[in-house]
Amino acid sequence: MTIVVFVKNTAQVTSRRCFSSHLKGLSRTGESLSSRWPHISSSPPATWSSWTTGLRFMSQGTASRSSAGGRSCRRGALALSGAAAVTAAAAFTGFLANINHLQRAEMATLVPRAVEEEQEEGDILARCRGFMSPPVTDVEVLQRRKGEMCTRMEMLIMETQAEFCKALEAVDGGTFKVDRWERKEGGGGISCVMQDGKVFEKAGVNVSVVFGNLTEEAAKQMRSRGKVLKGKDGKLPFCAMGVSSVIHPKNPHIPTVHFNYRYFEIEEEDGSKQWWFGGGTDLTPVYVNKEDAFHFHNTLKEACDKHHSQYYADFKKWCDRYFYVRHRGETRGIGGIFFDDLDGPSQEEAFGFVKSCARTVVPCYLPIVHKHLRDPFTAEEKDWQQVRRGRYVEFNLVYDRGVKFGLATPGSRIESILMSLPLTARWEYMHEPALGTREAEMLEVLRNPKEWL
Amino acid sequence: MTIVVFVKNTAQVTSRRCFSSHLKGLSRTGESLSSRWPHISSSPPATWSSWTTGLRFMSQGTASRSSAGGRSCRRGALALSGAAAVTAAAAFTGFLANINHLQRAEMATLVPRAVEEEQEEGDILARCRGFMSPPVTDVEVLQRRKGEMCTRMEMLIMETQAEFCKALEAVDGGTFKVDRWERKEGGGGISCVMQDGKVFEKAGVNVSVVFGNLTEEAAKQMRSRGKVLKGKDGKLPFCAMGVSSVIHPKNPHIPTVHFNYRYFEIEEEDGSKQWWFGGGTDLTPVYVNKEDAFHFHNTLKEACDKHHSQYYADFKKWCDRYFYVRHRGETRGIGGIFFDDLDGPSQEEAFGFVKSCARTVVPCYLPIVHKHLRDPFTAEEKDWQQVRRGRYVEFNLVYDRGVKFGLATPGSRIESILMSLPLTARWEYMHEPALGTREAEMLEVLRNPKEWL
Repeated sequence: MTIVVFVKNTAQVTSRRCFSSHLKGLSRTGESLSSRWPHISSSPPATWSSWTTGLRFMSQGTASRSSAGGRSCRRGALALSGAAAVTAAAAFTGFLANINHLQRAEMATLVPRAVEEEQEEGDILARCRGFMSPPVTDVEVLQRRKGEMCTRMEMLIMETQAEFCKALEAVDGGTFKVDRWERKEGGGGISCVMQDGKVFEKAGVNVSVVFGNLTEEAAKQMRSRGKVLKGKDGKLPFCAMGVSSVIHPKNPHIPTVHFNYRYFEIEEEDGSKQWWFGGGTDLTPVYVNKEDAFHFHNTLKEACDKHHSQYYADFKKWCDRYFYVRHRGETRGIGGIFFDDLDGPSQEEAFGFVKSCARTVVPCYLPIVHKHLRDPFTAEEKDWQQVRRGRYVEFNLVYDRGVKFGLATPGSRIESILMSLPLTARWEYMHEPALGTREAEMLEVLRNPKEWL
Repeated sequence: MTIVVFVKNTAQVTSRRCFSSHLKGLSRTGESLSSRWPHISSSPPATWSSWTTGLRFMSQGTASRSSAGGRSCRRGALALSGAAAVTAAAAFTGFLANINHLQRAEMATLVPRAVEEEQEEGDILARCRGFMSPPVTDVEVLQRRKGEMCTRMEMLIMETQAEFCKALEAVDGGTFKVDRWERKEGGGGISCVMQDGKVFEKAGVNVSVVFGNLTEEAAKQMRSRGKVLKGKDGKLPFCAMGVSSVIHPKNPHIPTVHFNYRYFEIEEEDGSKQWWFGGGTDLTPVYVNKEDAFHFHNTLKEACDKHHSQYYADFKKWCDRYFYVRHRGETRGIGGIFFDDLDGPSQEEAFGFVKSCARTVVPCYLPIVHKHLRDPFTAEEKDWQQVRRGRYVEFNLVYDRGVKFGLATPGSRIESILMSLPLTARWEYMHEPALGTREAEMLEVLRNPKEWL
């Protein structure tokens, strides 16, 4: 197996390199954890927890310097981690807020038939070296609890984040600002944001891993979903984690993408655990491009089909329903998939499905970015993009349950939650594209969601 | 008394003129209503109700053509109407949503001591000629019900709209697009929007007058406020009207202003009426200017003091509390006044206070606009303005009760509700001004509201 690792380069001009044998060498020489990551070895890594300082965990190169070697690096990273991931502080709130009884009833009809065979997940330390920052949980704790779902999911979301960030940096030439933050009540997150790049106006890829005790209000929300949860002395220890991302490109012919994959676990009085997964990936183009839509949806369908023949159809519908700007009578974009409350048929199989989804993020989106990278555009097309960005803001601030819950939750990291907002947006009074234009064609699709496959 | 009227000019290039004697002449010659306004005489004025066509009710000149004569026109308009006014379809929702028990308790301690003597309100038809459009209610109905509060308030909000729009057009040189719309369930509104002008990025001045029966949900909200309301067969006929406005200038040294004045009336089973007023005017500068803040607050205080010595202090606090972006820990701007549920000491006195407030809009804001009209500004200052615009959007979409209620109410006119959003806005990740800058000074004031007088 080829292992790719990006090592810290202390030189002023950093560079990304492939060292397929470097890690092996390391483990042979018995180099200690603390000598590689001085921040991690002894407990509170104070320097990493600043919200205002963008610290890089590893070196990053630029796309312009990526040659054939660079490309093989990226392919290597894919081989190592599968698809990468990210989360806002708000992500865990999605677990509480994104579910209603209708959705639960719908889910009850779905039982995954097949789950991708669990791949060799490799050495924790080696995998961590590919991340954008040390993980939220101490590496030693992760190693000790290697087989637990919380650890496996944290590794998956960190890998998803790293893989996606690297793919975006490679195409943009810019560098993500990495903020590692701690949550007073337990846990923390890693926010990666690239702003005003060559290709991307704003790209945010967030991981959060939070734990503590569920408040009474949150527990009540859980109970209203039909989950019977008995706490010890009224306390329900929980752990929630996820990766989430929103990418707003500059060129109006490159669509905005959003994805989010998350896991929630609650421990009951008797020590038993309630758990479930949620997530989805969806596309918000400025103009209709049937080929892009087909590619995006088909890639998602292929991932879904490996697990259940109904997943794509059901989760595509759920996505169109969820990302709906009611006061405009429009969906936010052309959809994708969205699911929540996935707690079957087994934890292993549900995780396998989420892993397949997380691994589709790069193959869903990057080919579309590359295809339109040099598409010329007019000022009018840019304006229309800005108007659509305004609608994106409307959805996120008015309807998105994760954002709403996050903003209302004391101690949330607001900058990570609102990282999903575009750098710029526009509201024109009574904007209505003329009949027969490409803008009108886009609106028609948003008003009447299509089947793309 | 000098009466100013703007008459319809059928020539291609329209112009604004003062005809102080024209109106008297008209009434003497006995010219009929229908010959002046063919749209109004016979019932449904279909051509006026289009949402997409901006029809002008009267001619409008441009600031560049305003000479001394133009200036006396504007002064004349003030003399006629007092301060002007406007409302979104959402405005009436404020009546339902803007009040809580805490606020009611606070109001109970306030009893206006003095009410401005009711001025001669003049002939309905003559006053209507100065409006931006025919009023929502038929002129003949207004004439028949001249003494009723609904009529007096509708005249006040129409005058406030016209006066403010004319003052803005005069300074900008642009022209408001006037949309007269009807509400299926009863009533309608007049939305005046000027977009991408010379001075104003986006200026919206809205009137709405809506009536019908309160839904059960709305009635329940009313009851939870402590109002005992008994409907006939469960139905509660209501009438709500208001004027509201948000003005976003281009120059970052000219602040954004918002105001809203509204009236609500509900008829109970026995024919008795519950009524109350609400409203306020507040300023959102991009940079602190103590002189502007003093002028703005002092003008409001003078209007308040004519009615009750506690009004300014109490309504200033209420304003700071209401326009608070909780997740940022910032107020939206430097405040002003905000009140709701004003149902005493008498209807006459409450109306007198609202009229005084509406009449302060132009004197509060226009001197500040003129003062900074030619202030030079840098790209950095423009960027900071755009970031502040983003916060404005956050408040309006996340917290503003009128907007939230409006978006959730079927049949609302979305474009009028969201007219308050700026033409452009910006969200920068982790934006924090450097210590000692004018941007940091602004933030400090927003985080710790000041007394300006």
